[in-house]
Amino acid sequence: MASSSGVIAPILRRTRCSSSLYKRASRSFQPAVQIRWTANTSATTEPRQPDSAGGVKGLKSSAKTIKYTTDSYPEIKRDSSFGGLKDEHVKYFKELLGAESAVIDGLSQDATEDLEPFNSDWMRKYRGHAKVVLKPKSTEQVSKILKYCNDNRLAVVPQGGNTGLVGGSVPVFDEIVINLQRMNNIRSFDEVSGVLVADAGVILEVADNFLAEKNHIFPLDLGAKGSCQIGGNVATNAGGLRLLRYGSLHGNVLGIEAVLPDGTVMNDLSKLRKNNTGYDLKQLFIGGEGTIGIITGISIFCPQRSQAQNVAYFGLESFEKVQQAFVEAKNQLSEILSAFELMDGRSQRLLSIVKESKLPIEGEHPFYCLIETSGSNTDHDGEKLEKFLEYVMEQEIVSDGVLAQDKTQINELWACREGVPETLSHWGGVYKYDLSIPIKELYTLVDDTREKLTKAGLVGDDDSYPVVDVVGYGHMGDSNLHLNIPTRRFDKAVEKELEPFVYEWVAKRNGSISAEHGLGIAKKDFIGYSRTETMIKLMKQIKDLYDPNGIMNPYKYI
Amino acid sequence: MASSSGVIAPILRRTRCSSSLYKRASRSFQPAVQIRWTANTSATTEPRQPDSAGGVKGLKSSAKTIKYTTDSYPEIKRDSSFGGLKDEHVKYFKELLGAESAVIDGLSQDATEDLEPFNSDWMRKYRGHAKVVLKPKSTEQVSKILKYCNDNRLAVVPQGGNTGLVGGSVPVFDEIVINLQRMNNIRSFDEVSGVLVADAGVILEVADNFLAEKNHIFPLDLGAKGSCQIGGNVATNAGGLRLLRYGSLHGNVLGIEAVLPDGTVMNDLSKLRKNNTGYDLKQLFIGGEGTIGIITGISIFCPQRSQAQNVAYFGLESFEKVQQAFVEAKNQLSEILSAFELMDGRSQRLLSIVKESKLPIEGEHPFYCLIETSGSNTDHDGEKLEKFLEYVMEQEIVSDGVLAQDKTQINELWACREGVPETLSHWGGVYKYDLSIPIKELYTLVDDTREKLTKAGLVGDDDSYPVVDVVGYGHMGDSNLHLNIPTRRFDKAVEKELEPFVYEWVAKRNGSISAEHGLGIAKKDFIGYSRTETMIKLMKQIKDLYDPNGIMNPYKYI
Repeated sequence: MASSSGVIAPILRRTRCSSSLYKRASRSFQPAVQIRWTANTSATTEPRQPDSAGGVKGLKSSAKTIKYTTDSYPEIKRDSSFGGLKDEHVKYFKELLGAESAVIDGLSQDATEDLEPFNSDWMRKYRGHAKVVLKPKSTEQVSKILKYCNDNRLAVVPQGGNTGLVGGSVPVFDEIVINLQRMNNIRSFDEVSGVLVADAGVILEVADNFLAEKNHIFPLDLGAKGSCQIGGNVATNAGGLRLLRYGSLHGNVLGIEAVLPDGTVMNDLSKLRKNNTGYDLKQLFIGGEGTIGIITGISIFCPQRSQAQNVAYFGLESFEKVQQAFVEAKNQLSEILSAFELMDGRSQRLLSIVKESKLPIEGEHPFYCLIETSGSNTDHDGEKLEKFLEYVMEQEIVSDGVLAQDKTQINELWACREGVPETLSHWGGVYKYDLSIPIKELYTLVDDTREKLTKAGLVGDDDSYPVVDVVGYGHMGDSNLHLNIPTRRFDKAVEKELEPFVYEWVAKRNGSISAEHGLGIAKKDFIGYSRTETMIKLMKQIKDLYDPNGIMNPYKYI
Repeated sequence: MASSSGVIAPILRRTRCSSSLYKRASRSFQPAVQIRWTANTSATTEPRQPDSAGGVKGLKSSAKTIKYTTDSYPEIKRDSSFGGLKDEHVKYFKELLGAESAVIDGLSQDATEDLEPFNSDWMRKYRGHAKVVLKPKSTEQVSKILKYCNDNRLAVVPQGGNTGLVGGSVPVFDEIVINLQRMNNIRSFDEVSGVLVADAGVILEVADNFLAEKNHIFPLDLGAKGSCQIGGNVATNAGGLRLLRYGSLHGNVLGIEAVLPDGTVMNDLSKLRKNNTGYDLKQLFIGGEGTIGIITGISIFCPQRSQAQNVAYFGLESFEKVQQAFVEAKNQLSEILSAFELMDGRSQRLLSIVKESKLPIEGEHPFYCLIETSGSNTDHDGEKLEKFLEYVMEQEIVSDGVLAQDKTQINELWACREGVPETLSHWGGVYKYDLSIPIKELYTLVDDTREKLTKAGLVGDDDSYPVVDVVGYGHMGDSNLHLNIPTRRFDKAVEKELEPFVYEWVAKRNGSISAEHGLGIAKKDFIGYSRTETMIKLMKQIKDLYDPNGIMNPYKYI
């Protein structure tokens, strides 16, 4: 992951835009915003940093080697019903997959180095002991692999781009990694209906670029798009930035081709938006995190790409006003609203400190929001957005704000939101919670957590305190809060204050302890805070039904 | 159902708008369209006619009594594992539900009259032999009823507004009807997040009117909205008119409260848009047609209501041009496009004959389309729509068209689309198929079917031919075709030509034999045309898992 050690260029130019200018010049609030931040160069060899990191266990290690998950979680024991990997197994896989590089064999030869990227996650938090990585090229090969593994009780881990945040895509013990990277063909695209059919291993950005040429858009976007694969996106029900506008994958995915543990190919690769012929089984695989089968292909409805994009960034004095602004944005911007992001003042202050740069607007505000509109007519959208901004300024819902004038400025404003996760890791480690909370109380958790840690004497400005600050940001439009606690060092006392406090707080409000990141290993033990015993029992029935031998992605999920 | 016998007022006023006027007056194509049709008065006592009737079995009976399903389908035998209804059962239900009216008892007293509306469907095609109808008022009561029925092997039929088109909501033999009409409370609505939580028995129109007051919209609309219930809508995964814009219920339903056959209450009534904590089990109940449990409550994401609405109606010379117009509408109208409906020339010709009125545009065109836009700014939307119309006229994609000037005209244009199903029943009966077909071949089926029936000598203008015509219309935006064959009388030869021809045709193109109406009894035997044996086997596993005694809505679905 991008650490804090990279060189960050300061703000190059910046035009000041005062609150009064906005308030009074009712028809002229288009100040130029020109900030430019270079990317942290150390990040380039790694997957692009996802929108926000997740998981709560421990802190990032700066050591060269990553701690084994079996050391971090000594309570997890290897399931003794699983067979041990033998030379004959590897021989079978080599014969099946043909090409040498399709099998990384750490059993019969020393391939530790080669295996490492598949054994550990990009956050350097989880590391498995897999000895074999398989890279099938077809659904048929996946079917044969799974049938063989099931017959021989060999546990497996399906792996896409391995950009997950909860340790779901790497092995714990010696599970066989089945990596989908070679299944990367776009199978078809219908320009009339907008339906794309593609292999699971297609990289999200590749799919989106392909669609861009055809004036369409993949209805999902997230920070890791340059590395993550669409099969993994579906398997983890990724949320991301476009959910507010285009809805969730449960609505957009029209079909799935998946292989069940016994080798059965479930061909449900419908290209139809309407198909009421029986239970919608594919939905179980969306967010199933590879525990009941491996997704090998998807068909997905892709909307028309918007021609026009506008972005505004503004400061507000209370969370009450943030809610008012959100309601007003939904009301006035309605069909063109494509993002409504929240950043608290503390997150923006830390961003400013770490980046050694000024924020796009003057003064300090307790809350900042970023609004994006996407539509088919630049003039119309600009007019709507200006009218909205005028209104919220006049009503004193918003204190100050700026509107991007071109693509560069759009990126610069987005950097104020997207730069937050990286910024927070500047001091060492971050406790990160990805939560859904009923919108009215969304931010209360941040205040309550800060108060609790402060009372415990753990928060302060100098090095004697482990905690730097307690901040909140996220997808306001989806009631999705990222609670982050940047820390200077690992301190058991901090963890003790945080857990189970945060989970209990969320459970009391019927929130979700994992809004978009999934369960994986990180949250497996906490599902009870978001789901009733009845629900968990019903889920276990599904797992047992599809994967009676439990070979699929064991030690994780539920 | 609305028969053809009602008095229909002729067109009152109409302003002619020629093709040439459109083509040349590039900035002035807003001719007034003023048609007024009164509703068929015989329809008022029945549920509002759904968007299109479905089912293929037989023709509508004009007799006073409806044929028992057991007579129409003599091959269906009563499951002997089900217990017979006894006085002690009725006693239990009466004690549980309290109020006398909660139990209509045809066993110990003569209440046959009262049972009729619950035993038969509004199309008068299906009729069961139920002796008991239960109307629980709470989830707890539903739970107790189901547990009791499961323990005593009493089969049940969940029933909402009973507006279905495939016989799914009425009993076949003596199944107990569990009608949700008394569970009709709106539980909560959050104006910031737009999340509505309501009992399953709330009528769709009531929910939508409630939301309208709060400037929101129910993300589903269909002809039966005045009678159908939201629980039934979810159980059948209703599609309808707003899917193009707002997506399917799989994306919009955020939570479900359902009772399983053993009385377990599955409380998955989340109000969160993002919640990645385990398998999304509620999805199995969306479109599950009441075969694994009874939905008692739902939470659903409701978008902001659009302030502006515009409707255009136009004629085109080929299906190729219809597709071009659709692509262009998606491209230019993008985020404001809320409907793109297709009607073939024959359907509009029959409409014109039956309604004794002229169509909104002159001449005869092989195809007609209706476009609706919904947005937040009337001027902007009007400008976009005008620009679009100019373009498609200039490019000769569209031959002629009109644009509604006010709400009355909007309704009048919509009547050209919504009046079609009623029109087609004018001659006696209609064979109706609700299909999803890849968009490029969507209309080919209508031509192929017409050719086949014509070759067989069954289609003609006078009474010696059973078939009046073969027409197609539907939701172009969703690739959803309604293939309709209006007939003068029942003729075995027609059915023989149609089946399995239609199903095989659709299966060959990987279409769906039930796009939005579901399976019920009508299509139970035909699922194999849209689903593989593997998929059906997997579905049966789910049924057996949740309902091992098979008491839920038997003899239907899969």
